Amino acid sequence: MTRHDGRAADQLRDVTIVRGWQDQAEGSALINFGRTRVLCAASVTEGVPRWRKGSGLGWVTAEYSMLPRATNTRNDRESVKGRIGGRTHEISRLIGRSLRACIDLKQLGENTIAIDCDVLLADGGTRTAAITGAYVALADACGWLGRPKAISGGVSAVSVGVVGGVPMLDLAYVEDSAADTDMNVVCTDTGSFVEVQGTAEGVVFDRAMLDQLLDLAVAGCAQLAKAQADALAGPPPAGPPQPASRGGGK
Amino acid sequence: MTRHDGRAADQLRDVTIVRGWQDQAEGSALINFGRTRVLCAASVTEGVPRWRKGSGLGWVTAEYSMLPRATNTRNDRESVKGRIGGRTHEISRLIGRSLRACIDLKQLGENTIAIDCDVLLADGGTRTAAITGAYVALADACGWLGRPKAISGGVSAVSVGVVGGVPMLDLAYVEDSAADTDMNVVCTDTGSFVEVQGTAEGVVFDRAMLDQLLDLAVAGCAQLAKAQADALAGPPPAGPPQPASRGGGK
Amino acid sequence: MTRHDGRAADQLRDVTIVRGWQDQAEGSALINFGRTRVLCAASVTEGVPRWRKGSGLGWVTAEYSMLPRATNTRNDRESVKGRIGGRTHEISRLIGRSLRACIDLKQLGENTIAIDCDVLLADGGTRTAAITGAYVALADACGWLGRPKAISGGVSAVSVGVVGGVPMLDLAYVEDSAADTDMNVVCTDTGSFVEVQGTAEGVVFDRAMLDQLLDLAVAGCAQLAKAQADALAGPPPAGPPQPASRGGGK
Amino acid sequence: MTRHDGRAADQLRDVTIVRGWQDQAEGSALINFGRTRVLCAASVTEGVPRWRKGSGLGWVTAEYSMLPRATNTRNDRESVKGRIGGRTHEISRLIGRSLRACIDLKQLGENTIAIDCDVLLADGGTRTAAITGAYVALADACGWLGRPKAISGGVSAVSVGVVGGVPMLDLAYVEDSAADTDMNVVCTDTGSFVEVQGTAEGVVFDRAMLDQLLDLAVAGCAQLAKAQADALAGPPPAGPPQPASRGGGK
Amino acid sequence: MTRHDGRAADQLRDVTIVRGWQDQAEGSALINFGRTRVLCAASVTEGVPRWRKGSGLGWVTAEYSMLPRATNTRNDRESVKGRIGGRTHEISRLIGRSLRACIDLKQLGENTIAIDCDVLLADGGTRTAAITGAYVALADACGWLGRPKAISGGVSAVSVGVVGGVPMLDLAYVEDSAADTDMNVVCTDTGSFVEVQGTAEGVVFDRAMLDQLLDLAVAGCAQLAKAQADALAGPPPAGPPQPASRGGGK
Amino acid sequence: MTRHDGRAADQLRDVTIVRGWQDQAEGSALINFGRTRVLCAASVTEGVPRWRKGSGLGWVTAEYSMLPRATNTRNDRESVKGRIGGRTHEISRLIGRSLRACIDLKQLGENTIAIDCDVLLADGGTRTAAITGAYVALADACGWLGRPKAISGGVSAVSVGVVGGVPMLDLAYVEDSAADTDMNVVCTDTGSFVEVQGTAEGVVFDRAMLDQLLDLAVAGCAQLAKAQADALAGPPPAGPPQPASRGGGK
Repeated sequence: MTRHDGRAADQLRDVTIVRGWQDQAEGSALINFGRTRVLCAASVTEGVPRWRKGSGLGWVTAEYSMLPRATNTRNDRESVKGRIGGRTHEISRLIGRSLRACIDLKQLGENTIAIDCDVLLADGGTRTAAITGAYVALADACGWLGRPKAISGGVSAVSVGVVGGVPMLDLAYVEDSAADTDMNVVCTDTGSFVEVQGTAEGVVFDRAMLDQLLDLAVAGCAQLAKAQADALAGPPPAGPPQPASRGGGK
Repeated sequence: MTRHDGRAADQLRDVTIVRGWQDQAEGSALINFGRTRVLCAASVTEGVPRWRKGSGLGWVTAEYSMLPRATNTRNDRESVKGRIGGRTHEISRLIGRSLRACIDLKQLGENTIAIDCDVLLADGGTRTAAITGAYVALADACGWLGRPKAISGGVSAVSVGVVGGVPMLDLAYVEDSAADTDMNVVCTDTGSFVEVQGTAEGVVFDRAMLDQLLDLAVAGCAQLAKAQADALAGPPPAGPPQPASRGGGK
Repeated sequence: MTRHDGRAADQLRDVTIVRGWQDQAEGSALINFGRTRVLCAASVTEGVPRWRKGSGLGWVTAEYSMLPRATNTRNDRESVKGRIGGRTHEISRLIGRSLRACIDLKQLGENTIAIDCDVLLADGGTRTAAITGAYVALADACGWLGRPKAISGGVSAVSVGVVGGVPMLDLAYVEDSAADTDMNVVCTDTGSFVEVQGTAEGVVFDRAMLDQLLDLAVAGCAQLAKAQADALAGPPPAGPPQPASRGGGK
Repeated sequence: MTRHDGRAADQLRDVTIVRGWQDQAEGSALINFGRTRVLCAASVTEGVPRWRKGSGLGWVTAEYSMLPRATNTRNDRESVKGRIGGRTHEISRLIGRSLRACIDLKQLGENTIAIDCDVLLADGGTRTAAITGAYVALADACGWLGRPKAISGGVSAVSVGVVGGVPMLDLAYVEDSAADTDMNVVCTDTGSFVEVQGTAEGVVFDRAMLDQLLDLAVAGCAQLAKAQADALAGPPPAGPPQPASRGGGK
Repeated sequence: MTRHDGRAADQLRDVTIVRGWQDQAEGSALINFGRTRVLCAASVTEGVPRWRKGSGLGWVTAEYSMLPRATNTRNDRESVKGRIGGRTHEISRLIGRSLRACIDLKQLGENTIAIDCDVLLADGGTRTAAITGAYVALADACGWLGRPKAISGGVSAVSVGVVGGVPMLDLAYVEDSAADTDMNVVCTDTGSFVEVQGTAEGVVFDRAMLDQLLDLAVAGCAQLAKAQADALAGPPPAGPPQPASRGGGK
Repeated sequence: MTRHDGRAADQLRDVTIVRGWQDQAEGSALINFGRTRVLCAASVTEGVPRWRKGSGLGWVTAEYSMLPRATNTRNDRESVKGRIGGRTHEISRLIGRSLRACIDLKQLGENTIAIDCDVLLADGGTRTAAITGAYVALADACGWLGRPKAISGGVSAVSVGVVGGVPMLDLAYVEDSAADTDMNVVCTDTGSFVEVQGTAEGVVFDRAMLDQLLDLAVAGCAQLAKAQADALAGPPPAGPPQPASRGGGK
């Protein structure tokens, strides 16, 4: 069984992560999962939403979007349509939940970090690339804030699916379109689960297949965690100037 | 370990299903999971969306909503806010995907069935009650159409979660609010998976816990499938008059 | 002259009122006018809109809506369309005005009561059933607040119309569709008018016909006032717990 | 009892009607009820909405709006708010219903007339001035279409109310703000009713008062019908060129 | 070369300005450029937007709109469409920028003036008529505020364009539709530029043509400045009552 | 006089253009004006809007947007706000008009090209970079369509402004913020004007200054035209597959 791009069933596409691509953001990363390219930015603002004031806890939110021509045919802009679609809402919520799982909101203090994940090119796996890249941007934003302990352990994500009866890792668009089952798995860098979302597309799946898919995903996330660690091993990008008001700073 | 309402950890709340509650709909059901009450309607229209015309295939969609005072405190209407929230979108999409898994769209022919799930009272598990009740409404709508073979096997759903370290079935609202992990599982009546959505709320979960949760859910869905079958065993509700144009009819 | 359901021209449909149907609301009622079913909830919040602060006066608002399949054919949700239609706006405003006519806003104090009227099944007269049921929910909410004097006298509503030249009380949907003139009348329990809205549908009406319609409506409202009084004669539903801050409470 | 502007209780404000003010419209009128000024336009388009095609019947719709500074303090534009308010919806619907009462839709043929009523200055009675002026614009549009028989009899409207216990005709803004009861009445030129909308503002009203108000309104409408007839007695405005396709034309 | 209305290429249409047309506004003007009619209102409110508080500076904004039947064929209302179009946005921003160029925001103090320009009849040049008329309304509003020094020098605007190869001043609609180049120029009363917006419509333009167009526009604005000065030479309209809180007042 | 980045007053920032960045689009370019980065895509669809059908002419539209963190502080998404702002509308319209000036719509045939310009990083001059880059994407899309003659001559754009009294070319953000006058100029590659938009920001400008700014802009556009020509001199990117239906193709 050969995949369209010559990969083995349990093989990720090439992953590259460029930190600090949007140099005026407190954290940012351009991540590639093969031809899929997502630009992730982490924006820090002092203070938290009203319902959280005085709690001593911070807050992390996320928004996902695609450029109109990230895909094979052009999609209308949601800003022009005047409303956000269900898929966008669903993915934005998934990214936010996933990243809050690796943040210690007490260590973050009463600061808010807004994550933006904008898909520049889409070839399958955009939501998992977004989560994986956003973790790097978030880590840099915590560093910029002088609060590196706010981020605990890594979080990465990968898609798995059943294509032609075969469980496969990190589906490209042509594979995803043909998949019977599609699953997105978010793991910590110690292999625990943050989120498991499996969907039967036409063909339901049994427990044995579910187990195989989870095995593939956990192994894939371990490799992604390594790519994140490698990217974060270097010196942090400069980032924007520190506000005068924050004494000690980074 | 006793639950707040005296149930065992692996016990469902009382389930009741009233068919034909909205008597002018082609299919409808009022379902109770304990105090949670969801009104489900299946509306048949001839024809399919434009992108599907001439395919010979039908289509099934779903929309979920809550009455403003279904909850402990009043929520603003989405119609008044002028936009649908992310949670509503996410659940509507889940219901639609789940029900399409039990429909043979070829047998349905070029007809569209719109499912409406409106939560009248919310005490946890509204989306799983909605799926379970909507299946009954959908089955009656297929019968009304004279196409009973369009629906293949049953689909039901239940929530499971980890509360105070203990895996539990069919969480009520107070349990759901306190859960470390929350999972919604949609199964066929033969125990295969249609959808698995597990989310760590604050505490990540390992493979062993995931397995326990899946066991609980599969057992719970089997009981719900029985409740559906019991409800559907009786004579169908009258439903609205058949259109003159559909010769043989039901 | 026999009506389609055997009623006399001056006869109401069967009226039933179930108090406390939404048990976590401060007041609620499920009201039936024949096959028409409306769920009414009264939600209390402390405080008033900004323009009213410091006045010592309370406020009452209302919102009306229909489930998509309350009607013979499905209507698109206003939340999905992203805007509220003119009919919905018009009825919501009518309900709000009618209920404020029976409230002593000074006795209410600086509290706001939001009334929600959701039509579960529609067979004509939904707005008049909504007003009649909402009065019961509102009365219970005032009781829950410990301010029973805030509500002064009853308010009920009924439709009248001219069908085939004959003035009739409490039109069902098939009658309403065929009516030449349609009128909704809101009365106090002492027979004074709160609102009179008469509309010629195709055939204009003269003063004599207007007088006959008003006579029918006043008599119908008197019967509805009795049904309300009977419902309210029993013990109040438990309602949600009283906030700790409100000392004496109910 | 003297009114703030010296009128008797049963006296209209000065009424003036300028036909053809928007000279490129098929019909238009600028109407003044005292300081209240409303610009009314009737726009003809060939064809009818889809649900009416092939019926041989025409259609008439109406939209009402106010300029932001028509009032004492500036109101935000509904276009900027992105939604139409309940009051605007309610009045637009009232105007449309009222004008359809004087149109023979069969005589109109499959043409649509859209009425626009824009309030340039508001001093009470804007909806009644709008109806009264729109009738003139509509009559001219029917003439332009070469279908003068499409319009049958006149329609005019006036407000009445109880101020300080006294029933009064054609309330100005200061009177309307102080009124206990406010009623808008739409009559044909033969004194039959098209619409009666009475609302208790704080003080409910009895049958005797209702009768007095109706008497005042019917007398007021008779005077307005005369003002309309006078305006329409002169030669019609030129209006826009006739489309080449409409053979005989006017 | 004769223009359709007999004007010379460098000739304005007749300009008339009626001050105080909306008598309850702090400043207002109805301006005609030939058949083009724009109603301009200036509304004063105490205070400034939040981002400006405590600065000692005022603020001026503007909104432009057209009545649906100001044009040859009816345009749908932006309030009904639920969104403001690009052209409206663009013109509103142009008017706001132009008027801020003649205001000394320090002299204005922490007050906000909202300019509304509503086109009642459109025959080309609506944005330039709006700017020219709005200046008059703004001047009166500054006077009403007792701050005549807030307005420094005049601002007026005119369109120029190339029609059939000939540069022309103050294009009417039929000319504008046929123009190869269209330019709107906003000048101070001393002939400096506030805004220059030239657009090639199908045929690009060279520097020599640009120079001719600017010459025409500067000369046209000088005449408009005179018309403004003439209008403002008379006594100011009464305007609404001064608030009690503003001691000295005007 | 030295600029903050060492440039001369009449010097452009470094310009780079990468063709084919979004490889599945019919034409695309990533353009940098110094730190400003804009991704431009040209999407071809067969057919034209309804109002143009049967004319034999094509159509070109454009949409401009910024990523939320393209700027120093994060901007809310217009999709989340539910409406497009005035600035976005204004720039989208400018880009569309500018590109239509270099297209022969007859040569294009009944095809539509949608231009998307998304700002990834913003440091002033985003609209001029967008126009300059979009021309390259548009040229490739015409080539892909096999209609290279549809594009006639080049179009490029640059900003000029007066900073500290000195006219300068190609303003960076810090310069733009401090400018007294800001002008955007769009030229053909033969130096004619497509669009001239000059705005006084606080200080009005006279004819002599306008002439200096135009000289600077014309010279800058000539350099940009050369950069476009250089980019287009190489072989075209592969682009997406040709539709089977288009016989000859490229």
